[in-house]
Amino acid sequence: SGLVHVKNPHLDSMEEDVLYHLDLGTKTHNLPAMFGDIKFVCVGGSPNRMRAFAQFMHKELGLAGNGEDLADICAGTDRYAMYRAGPVLSISHGMGIPSISIMLHELIKLLHHAKCRDVTIIRIGTSGGLGIEAGSVVITDTAVDSSFKPRFEQVVLDDVVVRSTELDKDLMEELLACSKEIPDFPTLIGHTMCTYDFYEGQGRLDGALCSFSSEKKLEYLKRAYDAGVRNIEMESTAFAALCGLCGLKGESSHTP
Amino acid sequence: SGLVHVKNPHLDSMEEDVLYHLDLGTKTHNLPAMFGDIKFVCVGGSPNRMRAFAQFMHKELGLAGNGEDLADICAGTDRYAMYRAGPVLSISHGMGIPSISIMLHELIKLLHHAKCRDVTIIRIGTSGGLGIEAGSVVITDTAVDSSFKPRFEQVVLDDVVVRSTELDKDLMEELLACSKEIPDFPTLIGHTMCTYDFYEGQGRLDGALCSFSSEKKLEYLKRAYDAGVRNIEMESTAFAALCGLCGLKGESSHTP
Repeated sequence: SGLVHVKNPHLDSMEEDVLYHLDLGTKTHNLPAMFGDIKFVCVGGSPNRMRAFAQFMHKELGLAGNGEDLADICAGTDRYAMYRAGPVLSISHGMGIPSISIMLHELIKLLHHAKCRDVTIIRIGTSGGLGIEAGSVVITDTAVDSSFKPRFEQVVLDDVVVRSTELDKDLMEELLACSKEIPDFPTLIGHTMCTYDFYEGQGRLDGALCSFSSEKKLEYLKRAYDAGVRNIEMESTAFAALCGLCGLKGESSHTP
Repeated sequence: SGLVHVKNPHLDSMEEDVLYHLDLGTKTHNLPAMFGDIKFVCVGGSPNRMRAFAQFMHKELGLAGNGEDLADICAGTDRYAMYRAGPVLSISHGMGIPSISIMLHELIKLLHHAKCRDVTIIRIGTSGGLGIEAGSVVITDTAVDSSFKPRFEQVVLDDVVVRSTELDKDLMEELLACSKEIPDFPTLIGHTMCTYDFYEGQGRLDGALCSFSSEKKLEYLKRAYDAGVRNIEMESTAFAALCGLCGLKGESSHTP
């Protein structure tokens, strides 16, 4: 049907659904009218960057009105920022898995309540590159964890549930085809590694704590490269797992 | 000595330390002049709330000038916001362990470079209460994970390191004593549980995904209560572990 699924039997019996961190809700807002025609959702960490992206899309799509003046749809909260340009929604998610997870739970319910169909979601983020030219774009084929495994471990109450981190292969090929029309930067397909920590978790030598040597760091990054990892960031496994479970065609592409 | 420690032998040999996510650095800013007299750091998730807190402190301390007009010291980035009022620094950290960890690594290095002494750091956040009156303040005695254990599991490269989540007992008692002078809200001491997820990890029935029954949720929350947990949030174990390792006198208190 192309609809966005929620997998929660409790939702049907709720009189109202408050999307708290987006400052939206089913009783306070007409979600089908506001969002029913959305076809693309682009997400990234920084609110300013996601506003700039919406302004860029507004211009690219040749939409009427002042693209410089887009309103933040989530202006009532400072947790996330959301802008739209035609059928494209642009949302910030902050940094790390817990932060993107809260946003995705509420975004998926928003798209479900709005009865959106055939939605494509793309994470456009920054990342650290691994053995590739700076300024390249990595289109993720598989999101992997810090052990290079294609899995996302989700704690549900106090049980650990392992989820798949597969992304949409057709969308990946489409994005790669698009990139061939743009000569300005190298684009490649590779695994994206997702960590819970920026400093100790990604082998950085310049955090407040660092207990490993430069050699140990390089040895780890080389093992990651040999496992197919081409870039490192902090949201892709949760993004892939949640979008996959809810029927959102998802991809993740990053500029190291 | 009361100084803030970094535990990273690589830092000494670095010519410049760029605190990237704070938009500050040792070559671009005179950190001792800007921050050397800081004695208190208060951290919380939301940038707007941390600005409001700095404005409140400005007024409470009777400082000269317009407290409504405080400048964001990290204005060059939208990752975090930072304000100061006299010896008090007020900083936002976003949501979740990965987000607060990035900020704390860079804050700890900032306080170290600035040669600050005897710094007290307090997380003042929102949280979900457990079997307590809404509007209470919970002063954390121990931060625990989703299995109610007083530990923080940090992935360093691909090893898991277990860290202590003890907080400063003297500071805890001091804060409790302060609360006795303020009759407006109940204050108590208890364990604070820290999760990686807001919906499935905290037993919420209204996420995009929910695979457990209302009974299973209540059974989990009852076990948490019986283990001494009085509130649930998403940053306390990482906060306790990082502050403890770096010699920052830390406490965490939350309003459910």
